[in-house]
Amino acid sequence: MDISQLIQKNNTKIVFIILDGVGGLPINGKTELEAANKPYLDSLAQTSACGMHIPVGHGITPGSGPGHFGVFGYDPLKYEIGRGVLEALGLEIELQKTDVAIRCNYSTLKNGLIVDRRAGRIPTEKNIELTSLLSEKINEIDGVKIILKPGKEHRFCLVLRFKEKILEKEAMVKDTDPQKEGKPPLDPEPLNNESAKVADIAKKFINQAKDILKNEEKANYVLLRGFSALPHIPPFEEKYGLKACSISVYPMYRGITKLLGMETLKVEGDIKEEVELLKQVYKDYDFIFVHIKKIDSFGEDGNFEGKVKKIEEFDSYLPEITSLNPDVLLITGDHSTPALLKAHSWHPVPLLLKSSYVFGGLSKAFTERECLKGELGIIPAISIMPLVLANSLRLRKFGA
Amino acid sequence: MDISQLIQKNNTKIVFIILDGVGGLPINGKTELEAANKPYLDSLAQTSACGMHIPVGHGITPGSGPGHFGVFGYDPLKYEIGRGVLEALGLEIELQKTDVAIRCNYSTLKNGLIVDRRAGRIPTEKNIELTSLLSEKINEIDGVKIILKPGKEHRFCLVLRFKEKILEKEAMVKDTDPQKEGKPPLDPEPLNNESAKVADIAKKFINQAKDILKNEEKANYVLLRGFSALPHIPPFEEKYGLKACSISVYPMYRGITKLLGMETLKVEGDIKEEVELLKQVYKDYDFIFVHIKKIDSFGEDGNFEGKVKKIEEFDSYLPEITSLNPDVLLITGDHSTPALLKAHSWHPVPLLLKSSYVFGGLSKAFTERECLKGELGIIPAISIMPLVLANSLRLRKFGA
Repeated sequence: MDISQLIQKNNTKIVFIILDGVGGLPINGKTELEAANKPYLDSLAQTSACGMHIPVGHGITPGSGPGHFGVFGYDPLKYEIGRGVLEALGLEIELQKTDVAIRCNYSTLKNGLIVDRRAGRIPTEKNIELTSLLSEKINEIDGVKIILKPGKEHRFCLVLRFKEKILEKEAMVKDTDPQKEGKPPLDPEPLNNESAKVADIAKKFINQAKDILKNEEKANYVLLRGFSALPHIPPFEEKYGLKACSISVYPMYRGITKLLGMETLKVEGDIKEEVELLKQVYKDYDFIFVHIKKIDSFGEDGNFEGKVKKIEEFDSYLPEITSLNPDVLLITGDHSTPALLKAHSWHPVPLLLKSSYVFGGLSKAFTERECLKGELGIIPAISIMPLVLANSLRLRKFGA
Repeated sequence: MDISQLIQKNNTKIVFIILDGVGGLPINGKTELEAANKPYLDSLAQTSACGMHIPVGHGITPGSGPGHFGVFGYDPLKYEIGRGVLEALGLEIELQKTDVAIRCNYSTLKNGLIVDRRAGRIPTEKNIELTSLLSEKINEIDGVKIILKPGKEHRFCLVLRFKEKILEKEAMVKDTDPQKEGKPPLDPEPLNNESAKVADIAKKFINQAKDILKNEEKANYVLLRGFSALPHIPPFEEKYGLKACSISVYPMYRGITKLLGMETLKVEGDIKEEVELLKQVYKDYDFIFVHIKKIDSFGEDGNFEGKVKKIEEFDSYLPEITSLNPDVLLITGDHSTPALLKAHSWHPVPLLLKSSYVFGGLSKAFTERECLKGELGIIPAISIMPLVLANSLRLRKFGA
């Protein structure tokens, strides 16, 4: 059901912490959470409602977009963010409703065939140089503003900024990446009648770029993927009646919360600085989202010990958070990132909800196997927000 | 799936007990069920299939209507009972398919503005006096019979009895309560083309009532809310092939089971009298629903000790119930009513199913935290009836 119709106002406070990729898998019998020495988290778990959440579905490994959409109560199968948009957010491009965002690769073209889809993974410095050259030479095409931003290695982002609002379907243009070396690049074909305009500008951009890059040995061509416009998403504040802000060091996550219409605070540093900012702004918001990134990064690198240490570091700041005494404190991940897999995974994610209205006493620690014994059981990620709202006494009774 | 297509006849007996609002929350470390001394329930839990059920959804606090619909296997999001209908049922008005039921308030009108939406909560005696005056003076409007019944304080119920059947959409008329004092009352506007007829009669009723009440100091106006007709609900007996009856002291619950087409037995008293009646009629039905109300009432009052005592009282009658030796004995609540919250809540509700076909041995007691360890896990309320039917060997195999 649509929870929005049950929302009631209250002045309760919610702190909502995502430990990115916190769930793991055992190496030598213990998961990262089981190996970590984290007295505060474990003690909190003992008096909290614990459980596991499934980000998207059984067996489904979520990307960062779906992972966060789910925990914020937006069905990740309904609200899909285009890859171009996600890339642009990650590169801190302030997308507008008139934009089409596209992920691009520098690639190598020879005799009309793509012989290297990543242009030999050119160094990022080279990418920066080429992208600024393209920016300089291509300001606009047929009145459409061209915005370019380099990423890592061969990746960059292209934004076509139109004068009028762009609907999602108007951005539906086919990827030009042939996916295999030795094949010719594809045309940016419109996938419906409404997207011909975008496809046309994209084609012109490719040709102009090809001309500018023609003397490059490796990066002499560009491949375009993930054409997308900003999706229409009901704003978080409207949906839940919560004055909300997000605290995140990484641009991608700031981009996601900006998409949801949260006030998006910027902070440099790591956990220490984020907790400092949380304390500063605590009185100003109903709902504060804190995103802790580096736990996931160590998981992605397969660095079990690094991930353990990062969890322990977070634990050391937990007393500063609990001393704020929010009505609801939620701690979970957006997905699992087991060091064993060096990647996001499909596993359920441990979850802890502390409020005055829980049983507690069922889980001995904040670990996968202890949270499985908790009172919440295994729930879909999109059930987290209804539980958070209920525990902060912000939902009315359904029916008489 | 629709379980009805798998129904097979059998002569097994089902006793289905709802301890209204039985689920609780810890105060000083123990929930009401944990604090209660209830040797029979606990011993029964040890050999039963235990679990928890979620009445409507994660975080959703159900009213009595949705709470009961769920446990009887009717999706509470699909079958919503109008507020007027529920009010009428609670006041023991025998609703017919030609009726529109409306919740009303006496209120105070001054210079065209509602200055008190509840007419200063006039005493119930005054309400009875005024409602009988209105009844006497307004028998019918344009051939539509007017039925009035006083409730508590300022509340009363109005039923418009038409000559022909009234569809749910024909009753869709806007509330006249402006929700805030200092505003004029609203018109009973039809919400679609089909409801103009009902809106017209309602308007005439309001005007006539205003005229009759004009010399009252406080209760000089009436506000109308929750216009509703009887919903179309597949009868319980047809849906499940069970000859069913309900035993309940409170009219609201008798009303609900009447809506479902169960034979609705009336009984005065409390648990003792209900169990007495259960024993008397046991041989005559396949399915006997027993509703124990007062556990919820103590919860609503925040009376932890009273709720504990009521649970203990029920426990003392349990041997009389188990000695009937039904094929399936189901004991649960329609929702939780923690004394801590003094209200219904969203928490999962402990559940016990005794039959010859369960594992048992997983829960030490009939409490929230012990039922969480049970073999049923955490299930939606609408899964209870399929489990009850299966355990009474009343469901055929699905597929070959």
